[in-house]
Amino acid sequence: MTSGVRPLKNTVIIAVGSELLTPYKVDTNSLFLTKRLNALGLVVRRKMVVGDNREELASAVREAASHADLVVTTGGLGATDDDVTRDAVASVFGLVLEEDPEVVSYIRSRFQARGFEMPEINRRQALIPEGAAILRNSRGTAPGLWIERDDVAVVLLPGPPRELRPLFDQVAEERIKGRTDGEQIFRRTLVIAGRTETHVEELTQPVYSEWMKQVPIVQTTILASLGQIELHLSTRHASEQSAVARLDGATEELANVLGRNLVSRDGESLESVVGGLLRTHGFRVAIAESCTGGLVTSRLTDVPGASEYIDAGWTVYSNEAKVRLLGVDAGTIEQHGAVSEAVAEAMAVQARERSNVDYGIGVTGIAGPGGGSKEKPVGTVCLGLVGPDKDVRVRTVRFPGERERVKFQASQAALDMLRRALLR
Amino acid sequence: MTSGVRPLKNTVIIAVGSELLTPYKVDTNSLFLTKRLNALGLVVRRKMVVGDNREELASAVREAASHADLVVTTGGLGATDDDVTRDAVASVFGLVLEEDPEVVSYIRSRFQARGFEMPEINRRQALIPEGAAILRNSRGTAPGLWIERDDVAVVLLPGPPRELRPLFDQVAEERIKGRTDGEQIFRRTLVIAGRTETHVEELTQPVYSEWMKQVPIVQTTILASLGQIELHLSTRHASEQSAVARLDGATEELANVLGRNLVSRDGESLESVVGGLLRTHGFRVAIAESCTGGLVTSRLTDVPGASEYIDAGWTVYSNEAKVRLLGVDAGTIEQHGAVSEAVAEAMAVQARERSNVDYGIGVTGIAGPGGGSKEKPVGTVCLGLVGPDKDVRVRTVRFPGERERVKFQASQAALDMLRRALLR
Repeated sequence: MTSGVRPLKNTVIIAVGSELLTPYKVDTNSLFLTKRLNALGLVVRRKMVVGDNREELASAVREAASHADLVVTTGGLGATDDDVTRDAVASVFGLVLEEDPEVVSYIRSRFQARGFEMPEINRRQALIPEGAAILRNSRGTAPGLWIERDDVAVVLLPGPPRELRPLFDQVAEERIKGRTDGEQIFRRTLVIAGRTETHVEELTQPVYSEWMKQVPIVQTTILASLGQIELHLSTRHASEQSAVARLDGATEELANVLGRNLVSRDGESLESVVGGLLRTHGFRVAIAESCTGGLVTSRLTDVPGASEYIDAGWTVYSNEAKVRLLGVDAGTIEQHGAVSEAVAEAMAVQARERSNVDYGIGVTGIAGPGGGSKEKPVGTVCLGLVGPDKDVRVRTVRFPGERERVKFQASQAALDMLRRALLR
Repeated sequence: MTSGVRPLKNTVIIAVGSELLTPYKVDTNSLFLTKRLNALGLVVRRKMVVGDNREELASAVREAASHADLVVTTGGLGATDDDVTRDAVASVFGLVLEEDPEVVSYIRSRFQARGFEMPEINRRQALIPEGAAILRNSRGTAPGLWIERDDVAVVLLPGPPRELRPLFDQVAEERIKGRTDGEQIFRRTLVIAGRTETHVEELTQPVYSEWMKQVPIVQTTILASLGQIELHLSTRHASEQSAVARLDGATEELANVLGRNLVSRDGESLESVVGGLLRTHGFRVAIAESCTGGLVTSRLTDVPGASEYIDAGWTVYSNEAKVRLLGVDAGTIEQHGAVSEAVAEAMAVQARERSNVDYGIGVTGIAGPGGGSKEKPVGTVCLGLVGPDKDVRVRTVRFPGERERVKFQASQAALDMLRRALLR
């Protein structure tokens, strides 16, 4: 901590933009900012979203300043009447706005580089509150601003992520780092598949509740998302080495109770973990999908380097396609129905044989909303897996929710089935 | 508006939960609430997110109450020490919390129905601030609460969406409806593909800027998301009929300048619009994908009823798979490279012929991060389309961004190519 300069710890983030108060858009810049602020040791106390309104924003900044050492605003630095952030913040601290000739030249040069004259309206972006430090924006015309008054620092950043991110990193390096209390927040994310939130809580709560009694405290949050559970651990510490050792130990304790339900210890996605296992073993996979419609294959190919272990995938939606294109026996479909473990098995076996790889996956089910019956309601999905030993595994699961949720959960179950087989 | 009762117009939404202040999770309940509140004629002035901390939440509620007629909180109604919303709101208005025996019985009966004793800790959920109205929660143990004091109404809702949504609808019906100023907000969403945000703005700005001078005002917001642009129109009006007519007229004006770039007038997704066109014409489609890895097929099968028009899809990742499984000529790959219009065309033609349908799509490209060259950098994607007339259309596009972004944009371009062909 630099001596003589007030330390920074508590942060409030304010996202500015009327579109963020509609039913269509959430602020996500704050996720990036929180990650970066936490890594620097700062805590986010509150987030706010306000529209493009000078008075509303001014009162939000005033309230934020009373709770925080650092206020970060995003958005509202454009050139139109709707862009009120400069004005609002200046009014809170009673600062006069003055046009900065260097900023005007910079904006003009950006336009000229593209062969345009600078529209007069863009001069607004060069209006700088007195005493503010200017953060040069290499990706846009609006500079960021740093204002420090009345025991609070306020940083104004543009809304577009590609402009905001480098500007925040710049201001973090130049003005935030070295002004914390020396402690940083360290995090770890454990991904768990194949178990419900309640089950994960029952397994892990006896472990993590002990950590609240120890120093440094490790805080644990359980977040359930579609088809997986995440455990987020965090600890505040001045020493990176000690914090990492503490989190390593905590993770190990959880890994012991979670066993093979633990997908990853560092937030790595299921598809990426499966890809890594395939690569490690030098195995390749082929996938035949009905109800998931290509989603399993698409998720596996989201991982860079997937061409090493994916050969081919079939989406065989109709019975005819299952028979004619993939070679599933028509009699098997006739006898057991298209949604059956027998057909899932046949799809897996055909996918593997036709593409001459190590593993074959077959997924067939009823994604809904139509097509359900009393015996096989919407959400029923049959999964088949066949590996190098030609052992076949099949499962039938019933997933809740609407079509897209059923598809996603089925793809998650298929990938997790392959993961568990690769761990054996 | 009920006479003698203060009208409700300005709303502040407060999401409570420390997990919403981490880098991992955003509040999305507010999107649902905004949609419903707007439909009732209420405006969302501000959104806040605070952690599970009594004092922080109390100060947020106090500030919100000074800006709003209605404050909606979500979360923090559970049974643990972390659940502070009841306490915090009661403290703001100086209300005493008292256990409500009827609520205790109700919670107890919910546990008993599942064969459990009610844990003592759950009594906390029956602590009711004096004078609060209780909103019976049929999907959880925490009741919602309605408190009206000091010229502001505060409604406390549980965090889980499946509990919150029916409770909000209940309170809207019983306590909000009929207390507005009689005007409601009506919205329309136009989806546009194949054009940049700047281009859409150039086309539409001369049209919508006129609307600001007319009564009732129609407000327009342009939102750019990956591979498409959305225009959100809204108007405030006492008469639904007039508002709908006004929005119909506005939409028509925009449709005239947007032409075939307009995908839908009511927020319908590109894949759904394509599905509708296929169904209308009685056409079926088959898709052969390389770099998109099944994503085009998966998106088309996200639409209910897709089995009517999708027969099959191939993901042919390796050259060998393209040749052996799909029947692309090895010489074509040799001569032009796997990422070429010639191969995209061959993939489309083979997909169509092998599955004996009306349209075939072929997508081949370099999703990255590896595999790029000077001539064909990462992001280069070749698209092929062949229809019932056997006319072949091919395109090469270069998409910016990382692997998943390239995949999505390529799938968007493929679907849009099919959409435009179906409009001819």
